[in-house]
Amino acid sequence: MSSMIFSTPNAHDLASKIATRVGLRHGRADLHTFPDGESLFRILDPVEDQHIHLVARLDRPDDKIMQLLLLADGLRQYGAASVKLVAPYLPYMRQDIAFNPGEVISAKVFAGLISQHFDGLITVDPHLHRFATLDAVYEVPSRALSATKEMARWIAQNTTSPIIIGPDSESEQWVRKIAEALRAPYATLQKVRHGDRDVEVSIDHLDFDNVQSVVLVDDIISSGTTLLRSNEFVKRLNANIELNICAVHCLATLETIDQLRAAGARKIVASNSIESPICGFDIADTISGALNANGLIKA
Amino acid sequence: MSSMIFSTPNAHDLASKIATRVGLRHGRADLHTFPDGESLFRILDPVEDQHIHLVARLDRPDDKIMQLLLLADGLRQYGAASVKLVAPYLPYMRQDIAFNPGEVISAKVFAGLISQHFDGLITVDPHLHRFATLDAVYEVPSRALSATKEMARWIAQNTTSPIIIGPDSESEQWVRKIAEALRAPYATLQKVRHGDRDVEVSIDHLDFDNVQSVVLVDDIISSGTTLLRSNEFVKRLNANIELNICAVHCLATLETIDQLRAAGARKIVASNSIESPICGFDIADTISGALNANGLIKA
Repeated sequence: MSSMIFSTPNAHDLASKIATRVGLRHGRADLHTFPDGESLFRILDPVEDQHIHLVARLDRPDDKIMQLLLLADGLRQYGAASVKLVAPYLPYMRQDIAFNPGEVISAKVFAGLISQHFDGLITVDPHLHRFATLDAVYEVPSRALSATKEMARWIAQNTTSPIIIGPDSESEQWVRKIAEALRAPYATLQKVRHGDRDVEVSIDHLDFDNVQSVVLVDDIISSGTTLLRSNEFVKRLNANIELNICAVHCLATLETIDQLRAAGARKIVASNSIESPICGFDIADTISGALNANGLIKA
Repeated sequence: MSSMIFSTPNAHDLASKIATRVGLRHGRADLHTFPDGESLFRILDPVEDQHIHLVARLDRPDDKIMQLLLLADGLRQYGAASVKLVAPYLPYMRQDIAFNPGEVISAKVFAGLISQHFDGLITVDPHLHRFATLDAVYEVPSRALSATKEMARWIAQNTTSPIIIGPDSESEQWVRKIAEALRAPYATLQKVRHGDRDVEVSIDHLDFDNVQSVVLVDDIISSGTTLLRSNEFVKRLNANIELNICAVHCLATLETIDQLRAAGARKIVASNSIESPICGFDIADTISGALNANGLIKA
């Protein structure tokens, strides 16, 4: 089977790295935007009978979904044998339940849409909470990779003898794997969320008196509230601790990053799954490491 | 059968008028936008077993499609029996062919998407060019209404003894119907398009010497190029002619409207199918006039 990589306009950098490392061709598709705001893709390389991996950055998904679907369906118009989505950051995973009567379960709508237009999905560290796996909501074959290897590498290169701390019980999956890779101690805080930007944290039985370095680890930096409370909490326990933050995906504004710095975080990094000012490691490493030369996930 | 009207956030005004005139309930759906740009709808009225007409303004469609699909699928999550789209302006109709090799036929992608998520479509004066009817591209039952009755009414109330002129042969369908309703003479210009903003026009055998008033009629004001050339063309034939412009849909910028005014257009109006500074008649009249109290198209 013959495979190619394509990319939406804001993911050419990731697609190019993945294509080079895996040994696949990176097909070109130009985008023209009309004065009325409509998008026109022109596919510049032949795709007939090709199995396509379409790489896309999908943060702020509402702005990007139409172009994604135009390109995916367009590749089929020109004869692509299959089109799989490679979305390092998978949006709409946090709206997985109706918290109030009448709320739309957006995660199901988004998953339905992707399942209708793609033959498969590859993503990195999706925010699985009430859904145990992507299969609970995606109707097409999916694979959730993890960036813990790249996060552990960054932590080893940039900190000394850290304790790995997760801000809540959900983060334990990342914290434990990273701590094991580094042979470092770890713990998770207890979180109670009262709203988008209102979060309390606490921790049981951990002695911070002799700790020199803490790395707060999470899947997503978004409003920053959880990490800010965790950051302040650790600093209150021991103000001399060197505190760093390492996450997979950064949805935060520059203002949020500045608040975390002001609260004492020394280095704050996330992958380039989303374009942000704190990219510290390359999500293309995670993805290219998982694919073989046919564009298939390695066994 | 029991029917209701719903609307996306930018079409509450249209939906409210249609609901009142047809005698249907206008259900409420609140939109919350999260800091990361994701959208959450909360449906505030029961919709179980209801046949829903979802009214949406869909100009600049890339910005709006995700919210449209979240609300449509959300209504189904809460038991709606059917969800039809009422889109006074139907986007992506002009990209109905690959003008160059490799171009995605966006009209087909958009129509496929709407057909997957809705049980039917009601629109007004869609830009049918290479597709003879909406059925050529939409897989669900569709109905194209026309605003010519409301345009003729505006022209009768705002101009005196006009000739109705269409800027190209495609516009004849509107021009002829409006001229017939007004018992006015009409003609269409010949158009040659060289690019998004590069258009030439000409006309055969029409004597403008004794004409006092011209109304240029078209389906869409977009870049304004076609209307500007037509406007200038008419003014060159007879500078004393009072020239007005009446279109169904306005996608133009304020700059384009100002250019048309500078070229001598006295009044420039379009419907409120799209929010613009030149709304002169109400597309809710066209839609409510076509629906019966069950929310069905009148025979």
